[in-house]
Order: sequence, then structure tokens, then C-alpha cells
Amino acid sequence: METEIKILDEPEMDNPVLIEGLPGIGNVGRIAAEYMINHLDAKKFAEIYSPHFMPVVLIHDDEVELLKFEFYHWKNDGGDDVIFLIGDTQAGKEGSRGHFDVSEKVIDLAERFNVKKIITLGGYSTGDIRDEMEDKLEVLGAVTNRENIEKYKDFGINFEDTDSNIGMIVGGTGLLLGLAKRRGIEGLCLMGETAGFPILTDPKSAEGVVRVLSDILNIDVPLDDIEKKVDEMEDFLGKLENVQKKAMRNIESGDGEDENLRYIG
Amino acid sequence: METEIKILDEPEMDNPVLIEGLPGIGNVGRIAAEYMINHLDAKKFAEIYSPHFMPVVLIHDDEVELLKFEFYHWKNDGGDDVIFLIGDTQAGKEGSRGHFDVSEKVIDLAERFNVKKIITLGGYSTGDIRDEMEDKLEVLGAVTNRENIEKYKDFGINFEDTDSNIGMIVGGTGLLLGLAKRRGIEGLCLMGETAGFPILTDPKSAEGVVRVLSDILNIDVPLDDIEKKVDEMEDFLGKLENVQKKAMRNIESGDGEDENLRYIG
Amino acid sequence: METEIKILDEPEMDNPVLIEGLPGIGNVGRIAAEYMINHLDAKKFAEIYSPHFMPVVLIHDDEVELLKFEFYHWKNDGGDDVIFLIGDTQAGKEGSRGHFDVSEKVIDLAERFNVKKIITLGGYSTGDIRDEMEDKLEVLGAVTNRENIEKYKDFGINFEDTDSNIGMIVGGTGLLLGLAKRRGIEGLCLMGETAGFPILTDPKSAEGVVRVLSDILNIDVPLDDIEKKVDEMEDFLGKLENVQKKAMRNIESGDGEDENLRYIG
Amino acid sequence: METEIKILDEPEMDNPVLIEGLPGIGNVGRIAAEYMINHLDAKKFAEIYSPHFMPVVLIHDDEVELLKFEFYHWKNDGGDDVIFLIGDTQAGKEGSRGHFDVSEKVIDLAERFNVKKIITLGGYSTGDIRDEMEDKLEVLGAVTNRENIEKYKDFGINFEDTDSNIGMIVGGTGLLLGLAKRRGIEGLCLMGETAGFPILTDPKSAEGVVRVLSDILNIDVPLDDIEKKVDEMEDFLGKLENVQKKAMRNIESGDGEDENLRYIG
Repeated sequence: METEIKILDEPEMDNPVLIEGLPGIGNVGRIAAEYMINHLDAKKFAEIYSPHFMPVVLIHDDEVELLKFEFYHWKNDGGDDVIFLIGDTQAGKEGSRGHFDVSEKVIDLAERFNVKKIITLGGYSTGDIRDEMEDKLEVLGAVTNRENIEKYKDFGINFEDTDSNIGMIVGGTGLLLGLAKRRGIEGLCLMGETAGFPILTDPKSAEGVVRVLSDILNIDVPLDDIEKKVDEMEDFLGKLENVQKKAMRNIESGDGEDENLRYIG
Repeated sequence: METEIKILDEPEMDNPVLIEGLPGIGNVGRIAAEYMINHLDAKKFAEIYSPHFMPVVLIHDDEVELLKFEFYHWKNDGGDDVIFLIGDTQAGKEGSRGHFDVSEKVIDLAERFNVKKIITLGGYSTGDIRDEMEDKLEVLGAVTNRENIEKYKDFGINFEDTDSNIGMIVGGTGLLLGLAKRRGIEGLCLMGETAGFPILTDPKSAEGVVRVLSDILNIDVPLDDIEKKVDEMEDFLGKLENVQKKAMRNIESGDGEDENLRYIG
Repeated sequence: METEIKILDEPEMDNPVLIEGLPGIGNVGRIAAEYMINHLDAKKFAEIYSPHFMPVVLIHDDEVELLKFEFYHWKNDGGDDVIFLIGDTQAGKEGSRGHFDVSEKVIDLAERFNVKKIITLGGYSTGDIRDEMEDKLEVLGAVTNRENIEKYKDFGINFEDTDSNIGMIVGGTGLLLGLAKRRGIEGLCLMGETAGFPILTDPKSAEGVVRVLSDILNIDVPLDDIEKKVDEMEDFLGKLENVQKKAMRNIESGDGEDENLRYIG
Repeated sequence: METEIKILDEPEMDNPVLIEGLPGIGNVGRIAAEYMINHLDAKKFAEIYSPHFMPVVLIHDDEVELLKFEFYHWKNDGGDDVIFLIGDTQAGKEGSRGHFDVSEKVIDLAERFNVKKIITLGGYSTGDIRDEMEDKLEVLGAVTNRENIEKYKDFGINFEDTDSNIGMIVGGTGLLLGLAKRRGIEGLCLMGETAGFPILTDPKSAEGVVRVLSDILNIDVPLDDIEKKVDEMEDFLGKLENVQKKAMRNIESGDGEDENLRYIG
């Protein structure tokens, strides 16, 4: 089995922007993208399956399913269409090759639908617990072409700290930008600062990202119910967190140390 | 060397169901499948060899042998035929790619013999030692299509806990279902709860799985001698446990820490 | 995506020598090569991108960029031309295959431009802090053909300790020599002793390497401002150090333990 | 670069037996094979290079060289010819795939020269320091076909303990047998018990293996000077031990913890 794009539908698209939200720190990107998909009622039109994803199946709503990426389309009557990419996992948990392989397939799909701009979403852990500062958490940004910083500055994105403090972006959120750039697709990365630990779903941080993103896309997205919606997603997000934890610890055969990973057979 | 299906015989099959029992937690799946193979006197007809298996040979009955998967056929005069898959190891100890690669080969073989249903067997470690509860240990289940839960409910399978508590199935037992589903093959997973530690052969748990499975297949399998039979398998199962331990610890070159892994050359 | 050589320009070259300076211990090779590129105003003419590099992008000068190797050409009016190779990362962080794959591509490029000699630069950590001995730090050497030691001896290179004490050279600096040798390209490795810890940029050690190298190439390179120049590179070198640290620790998904690796998404 | 057999010479061979001696526990196999090569003055006729070997070069006798396997031929006027395989490293340090890939190439070469029998040599660590028992250290054996045990029993090989206590053979020494068997080549493994720690060259154990092997091959090999000869090999064996240690610890980028691994660049 090779990494495979499965096209479920071929919607007409008008100048689509690709928004990526994979699981990661605080699950910020995943929550932000899924929240918008739900709010806008975007329609799924494609999936990616890959042997570079972890060899597990998720059990959800009483059904077993391979890990996958999902692409949703939203017809924007007032402007550019939007493609959302959400996934059950990062692009390649096993190593660089897989990460590049899957990310290239995403860019292939983007090219097929004439995507000219890609916005990747993620979280950035500030590393300390600073609840009192929570409302000061910023959205950091990075671009593929520095001349574009100017046009995003009005949206309250902090580009300075990304360059000087972060210095690099790890995983699909970064790699998709790097690969897009090589094929002439413009890219922007939005990272919500998150106060807590790496994997601890953070709706507050996602809210900041959705606010900036909906401003950029010029879509009206109400944010008052994001925490409630995230509560509703919680069961599934917990499963994704397990997948991520498992990948991080590189537990190959379920050694029983983790309560949630006691099964293999 | 690529992963290779070696067909030893081409038996006529009547609507076969594929039963998988690879080593894993409690060796539940492996014991259950092997017990039924022995009881039914099923005949070996195929093997799989793969460079994704660990680079070791087993010494058994005075002979050296590569790790392999084995397929057995049982001619069921009163109903659907059965194919049993047992293996010396999980599908791919080294990483996702290998796991997908070998599992796909299993599904290829299933398609070749017109398998329409696959049942995978495994163990689920409850994580605590609860001997006193042993007779309450359940068989958990998961399916590829939720509408099938109904027809399995009479067999005393617990589907609720699998979705809500486990959330995912790691390794071949899960992956085979996920891949089967993509090719239109219906799948069911049976997991025997096991009280102990990950790798500690548990005939009690396997007994529960055999009971449910033989009910589903409508075969009469006496269970009073399973512990005795497992005792007889013990020498070989011990070797499989070593293979599994070795894989888990990812000891590449026999570092002498494990009594049973003191050889490399 | 496969490892790809991207030729930006096809300069005329006169008997070019390839000088390699990848990041590594003390960043000695990288600093030495970059210092010479800047001083000589060498021109970039090629890049290598690879799925064997880590799945990250660097953010530098406000732009996101994939990890890459860069090749610079210097037209030497008084002798042999020079090609400099610098990189954001070692040849293959993920394993042997990648390392061989990328290194072979470097040798392919060398052959395309008729390179007959390759000089790789690196650092060798003496393992102890011996500031008082710093001015006694030597440049160690190794060659692909022992008859060439004689002609390099006048440049104050210590070949004895490399054979007896080091015994092997790990990574691109060694592998490029081994692969070059197989294709009939002569090779020399220069390693600056460095007193400190593996990854701690050491301009003093690089200075020794530049001195020996410029003597061999018969180029006049002033060394009085190397520490100042390295200070100027510091921001970017810090980012490379993060990439290296990350690769060493094999952190697959940014687990937040390292201050500089708190992002994934 | 793919794994490559490099034939240096095409000697006429009369019914050759392949003897394998790669580095490993106690370096028993490597020492035994090299001692016989030196004593018999066998001639090198082939090499294997592979991207599955570690990305390092050895510096020996003042020259840099890729890791390799070497094949030597000894013309036996009084019986079957002998091919010796020695290597700088185990077949594939990085994972199963590499191990299978390189081992298959060895069997390819064996078939090309009509090898009908392969004998692999290694060490088996008893795990405890028992100097006083040293002269009781045995040579353990395993075969590809159990009917052959009978014909080797007169040579004082212990087959029982291998089956019951070891249960599996890890690495090239085992894998070569398993792969040979699949192609109809008969195989025998000889393992010298060694009292000490995994990597600690043990000439005493190698002596036992040479004694049994020379009996089987019906060659007269004096053993009184093996310790002296091993002393002479010591410098190179020390380098191989470093390669092995490095592989075991899976240090990807020379993190300075090991005195002998302080270089990368």
C-alpha cells in the first residue's frame, strides 16, 4: 500500500485556500479547523490513507476505521472558497520520509484544485503555566515569502517572535509550507500560544487562531460556543491524544505502561 | 526480499471466514487460534515470509526457521469453511510501513480465496491483577460496520467498552480490520480481557475467546482441556514471547540485559 | 519526493576542489566553510533537498524554508576553483539509508563538475574542558589513500592520532570520503580539535581548520575577524543547533522538554 | 546506492562451503574466521557494500574505508573448497529490512559459486563471569535440517541447549541460515559459549569454534598461537567494537558520551 488520495467528490471550486489543522500541541490546529468545518457545514470530498500513519485503527461511533486525513470544501459565495484539511494524526509519525511523502500528497491535491494559498494552523507551547496571562496569549505567524508579512500585520499576528524565538516549525504544519513554497504556492502559518503541556486540548488558544483566520478569510464565525463545541468533540480528541502519545513514546507493541494502550494482538 | 505469500496447496473452499490469531497481549489470539487448529485438525496451505519480520530465526524441534505467518484451512461440512492465520510475530515489528505491507498481503490472500468475513482475535490487558474477578473477564468486540453489532450481541460480546474505553486497536488485529473494510470485507475483532501483564500467556482469556468464536462459527469445541493443551505449547510460546520482548525493547544487537537474548553473531 | 539536486546556475569550473562543511561537533566544519564563502564571496549555484532531512522548516529572515544543502562556487584566478558545500543539517538524520542516499547525490554533483579532490571539514571533541591548552588544539587529518599523507604533512596536520585514537569518522564528513574513494575521487578530512561539548559553536577550532585549508588551497584568508563573523552568524547557528539537538534526541513530535522545541502542529 | 556485490576475482571453486564470521558477542565468529583466513592464506575475491551499514568510515592503516563484507577463497587440495565471509559490521544495523537485504545478497553470492552448505559462527553469552569454568565452555550448534544433527554429533557440538535454552538466533548468523534453507542450501550454526559481556573479544571461545570447525572441514589448524594472533588484531577489533557499540546505543549524531565516539562533522 502506498499513500493514497481518495477523491470522494469533485466539487467546483473558486480560487480555494487550503486550511490545514492536524493534531499537535494543544490540538490547536485540529480544533480550530474542525470548529470552522462544523460551523460552515463544509462538505467532505477527499481522504488520504497512508502506510506512514501508525498501524492502529480508531474505534469511534462503534466502528473501526484506519487513520486518515480528510478534506472538506466550503463554497464561499462572498469570496474565495475554502478547503479544510483535518487529520487523525500528524503526516508521518515514523520518520522524515513518511512525513515528506504524505505532505507531498497534500500538495498534489492542492495543485489539482488550483490552490494558490495555504494556511497551516498549530499551537506553540510557551512552556509555562501562566493562567493569569491567558488572555494575553498571542497568535504567532510565519510566511513563505517575507513580503507578505505586511498584508497580514493588521490581523494582529506576531511575526517577530516566530523568527527570533522559535526558529523552526516541526511536523506537517511547517513541512506543508516548505513544500508548497517550492511549487509556487504562497503559505502562512498561524500558531496559537498555549500555556500548558504539549498534548492537552486548549480551546482558548484555538479560539485566538479561529479569530485571526476568520478575519483573514473575511468570514463571520461566532466564537462564544467554541468551548462547548470542544467539549462535544472531547471523546474523539481523547482518542487522537492517545494516538499522539503512543507515537511520541514510540511504543511499538503496547507495553502496558499507558492505561490507554493496553491492547495489542 | 519482499514480503512473499507462499501457497503450499490450493484447497477448494466454501465461503471461508478468515480467523486471525497473532502473538500479542496474553498471547490470547495466538492460543485461541492454535487451539482450534489443533482441535479441528485444520491443514496448512500457505505461509508468508517478510523482511519486515525481525531478523531472527527460531530454533524449534531442533531446526532453525525464519519467522513466518501460517494459514490453515478447515473444511466445514456443516457450514462455512474456516481459514486460520497464526504467526510467530506481529505483522511488522519495525514500523508502520512493514505492518501495512504484511497486512495487505494477508488481505490479498483473503481476496484470492474469496473471504467475505474476517475475525481477528486478541487480548486486552485490564492493567490490574484481579484474580478474584477472573471469571468475570469479558470478551470485548469491535466491528467494521456498526449495523453488524446487532447480530453479534447474542454471543455475549461487550461492544460498549471497546468504543468508550479502548478507543483504538494497535497492531495487526486492528489493521487487518481497517484494510479489510477498505476492500469490502466485513470484519469483527474479539478481545479477551486478561488480568495480567502484557506478555504472559493467558489460557483463561483465550478460553473465553474460543467460546464466543465457536458459537459464532457454530462449531462444537470442547474447552475442558485448553489449559493442558496450552501447557504443551508452552515451550514454543516461550520462544515467541522472547521474540516479542526483543521487539518491544528494540534491542538491535543483543545487549545481554535479557537472559534470553544473549546471543548474536 | 526523492532527494533532488537543484542546479541554479552552471558556472564554468576549472579543476574544482569540493570543500564540505556540514553542521556537527562545535559546528567546526560549517563555520569554517561559511567563513570562507563569505570572505571569498563565492556564488551559490546548486541546492539539495531531501526527504531524509528532518521534517521541519527553518524560519530565518522572516521566511520559512525547507532544510537544504547549498553549493557555492569560487572562481580562483590563481589556481584550482573551489566548490563549497554547506548544509542546514547532516546528510541523513534518520538512518543509514538516507545518509548514503544524500551523500551519493553530493558525489553525483561532484562528478558532474569534474571534481577530482574532496576535502571534508569537521570537529573532534577531545572530551574534556581544557581551556589552558586551547592554543595547542590540533587539526587532525585522514585520507582516502595513504600515499597522500606525505604531501599534506607540511601543513601541520596530525594524521597519527586519527588512526590510532579515533578509528572511525561518523556521518557525512566520513561517508563522503568513503563514497568518493569508490568513484576514484581523492579525499582528505580535516578535523579541528574542540575542547567543549558536542554542540557548542567553536570558532577557535574552526580558525585552525581554515588556516590549514587556506594553506592547502594556497588562498590568503585573514583570520583576525573570524570570532566577530561567527558572532554575526550566531542567530542562524543557534537554529541549526536546535535542529541537531532535535535529531539527536530523536524527538518525533515535540514533547516540550526542550525550550526550543515547543512547537508542533 | 543499493547493496552491491563487488566481485574482484572469479576463482575456480570445487564444491565450496561458506563460513560466516561477522562481529558479534565476544567477536567469536569474526575472530575464528579471520584466524583461519590468515592461517590458510585464503585470497579475497569479493566485497559487499551497503547503505544498510552504518554511515561511518573506518580509519585503518592510515586510510579511510567504508564498512564492508569481505569474501575469501581457500583452495582445498584435499577436499571441498572454503569461502570465508568476514565483515566490519553485522548485516543490517538499522532494522530488519537491511538485515534481510544484505543477507540475501550473501546467499546470492553463495548460489553463484554453487555453495551447497553454509556454516555460520558466533558467540553465546552465558551471562555470568565464570572464569573457573572456562575450560568447560561448550560449542553450541543449530541446523537447518534436523536429520543432519547426527552427522555433526561426533564433533562435540551441543545441540540440545540451543533448542531448549536459546530458542532463537539473532542477526546475520541466524538469518543467513534461515534464508539459505529457503533456497535449498544446508546450514549449520556454531556458537562458542563466552563467559563475559556482550562485546569483549574472547579468543578462548573462538578457539573452541575453530577446533570444531577445522574438524568438520578436516583441515589441520594449529591453535596454540590464537591468543597471540588475536592480540595482533586487537587494534582493528577495537575499532569494530566501537562500531558495534555505536550501533547498539543508536547514537545518531555522536553525542559525546562515549570516549570513542566524539567525532561527527
